[in-house]
Amino acid sequence: MKGNLCKIGLLGMGNIGTGSYMVLEKEREGIKARTGIDFEFVKILEKFVDRPRPVKVPLEKFTQNPADIFEDPEIDVVVELLGGIHPAVDFMVDAMNHGKHVVTANKAAVADSYELLRDTAEKNRVMFRYEASVGGAIPCLTAIENALLANRYEEVYGILNGTTNYILTKMGDEGLDYETALAQAKEKGFAEPNPTADVEGIDVANKLSILLALCFGVRVRPDDIPRTGITGVTKADIEAARSRGNVIKLIANAHYEDGRLVYSVKPTELPADHMLAAVKNELNALWLKTTEAQELMFYGKGAGPLPTGSAIMGDVIDIGRAIAKQAAYDIVVPGKTE
Amino acid sequence: MKGNLCKIGLLGMGNIGTGSYMVLEKEREGIKARTGIDFEFVKILEKFVDRPRPVKVPLEKFTQNPADIFEDPEIDVVVELLGGIHPAVDFMVDAMNHGKHVVTANKAAVADSYELLRDTAEKNRVMFRYEASVGGAIPCLTAIENALLANRYEEVYGILNGTTNYILTKMGDEGLDYETALAQAKEKGFAEPNPTADVEGIDVANKLSILLALCFGVRVRPDDIPRTGITGVTKADIEAARSRGNVIKLIANAHYEDGRLVYSVKPTELPADHMLAAVKNELNALWLKTTEAQELMFYGKGAGPLPTGSAIMGDVIDIGRAIAKQAAYDIVVPGKTE
Repeated sequence: MKGNLCKIGLLGMGNIGTGSYMVLEKEREGIKARTGIDFEFVKILEKFVDRPRPVKVPLEKFTQNPADIFEDPEIDVVVELLGGIHPAVDFMVDAMNHGKHVVTANKAAVADSYELLRDTAEKNRVMFRYEASVGGAIPCLTAIENALLANRYEEVYGILNGTTNYILTKMGDEGLDYETALAQAKEKGFAEPNPTADVEGIDVANKLSILLALCFGVRVRPDDIPRTGITGVTKADIEAARSRGNVIKLIANAHYEDGRLVYSVKPTELPADHMLAAVKNELNALWLKTTEAQELMFYGKGAGPLPTGSAIMGDVIDIGRAIAKQAAYDIVVPGKTE
Repeated sequence: MKGNLCKIGLLGMGNIGTGSYMVLEKEREGIKARTGIDFEFVKILEKFVDRPRPVKVPLEKFTQNPADIFEDPEIDVVVELLGGIHPAVDFMVDAMNHGKHVVTANKAAVADSYELLRDTAEKNRVMFRYEASVGGAIPCLTAIENALLANRYEEVYGILNGTTNYILTKMGDEGLDYETALAQAKEKGFAEPNPTADVEGIDVANKLSILLALCFGVRVRPDDIPRTGITGVTKADIEAARSRGNVIKLIANAHYEDGRLVYSVKPTELPADHMLAAVKNELNALWLKTTEAQELMFYGKGAGPLPTGSAIMGDVIDIGRAIAKQAAYDIVVPGKTE
């Protein structure tokens, strides 16, 4: 970092990349005032330079060559927002091997290559942050890795996917059937044209895999997490749940049974007066039962360009402050697995 | 810090001090495994050595002389849990001037002497942490000072006092009058024999004063915050609110009106389906509206020895890790006031 300017290289300028860029444009002066550090996206790896965006990006920032970012000695932090496992993981490893600190929102890549990414960061003494990969804007991973370090975890309950929570909310509150609610979610931009990863619970399994590493110190690959999506949830199921005073949510859960840790992603009935039952539409929440803090819940926007950009920039700012303190190497042990 | 042992001096071993000591006893091995650092309370300033406690404390740890802690070169962190403004503030300043990092849960002291404590920490290049002073176990200050740094705040809504929330919950759910609910709260240990600071909103005003500094960068002394307690709330008020589909909560609020920041502590009607309306009994919650993350809520135990001890130890662990990284000096700018 030269002077007080922290230079960021961005991999991928889709919705989340654009959101992160917009957050920095909007908040740059305030961030500078609060931290004494100026942040700037200086280079962007992105094929679709001309794609219409709600923010104006100087053309000279774009490149088609990742080496322009990894080999630029002035770039401090690389933000990976390509999505998917490859080439995202390889690019993050490459960036770390070039001494760059790495921030990502890519839950699939973190869940798939957790040890590789963590160990590569430790080996290169760089920081690796992924707050945005679980719960979007909700600063739950930061809390687990810092303020809650004196706790062991007894149970984790999460509503961690906005698409499916939106669909289940519409089915429950407006009596829509699954297909109609899904169509509405697509209209409103809460569901992808191909919603498989969301409605089949694959996205949530990636997030639970990350939480299992951070909260319980165990490594479980997403494919090894028992998983049921919401495609089989009917109006009748929701009515039957209501008759029992319950609501149905797609829940990522981990807890102990006879001392054994069990985990799953599946549609689950919750009492209507449970805090998680009040989490509606595209919002997310993580409910934790711990040994000392006892009961906690974090609630907020689980997706969207600006909320996710808020989490991305939170990680980037934390890294910038650490660099300013010549203390960028951050032990990643909370997620260390046996 | 010698080797990997971080030594803590404790000022005051009442309920919260005892809770913090118990949390470390229970979690010490796990904390060591997760952070690579061993923590120990080595000296305790406390008059009532013989007071019955749920944990066994070696008598030789107790002292009647604060200098035994401040002048011990081996003590890294001083945890202040005396409560009240004096001598707590003087002791924290004295500890910092001796190069000790300071952690406190004392909202009255932080709200009263915010600039003095912050500036003394900066001058001595020591860390000053007070997560437990607002929302007990809820890691809200850590989030505001780190993960949410890319945000400006538009509105803050807090249920930040367990005693008053317990009383209002009983009045609302069981139709008790104020006096009966207060008596129950005292029985259950949720209210002090003299509940004035709680029921008159003084405790909440201290917490809002701290939030105003961290979220809005403005310094407002607790006495300058318009404040109404719950002693005037009647069964009729709660019934009238219910007839409008609302519930009454004691709310700490700050928001902008015509570009001007306005703030208050007062009984407030919330729609029954607002997330904060579901926060019952002694639980606390902080609801935030920000420019980028947009809507967030943190929920959990706002008081109690173990939950508060969880927040205290979270701050202590963070300091221990910073010392291990030779980076103990942490810029306190998020709360910097104009």
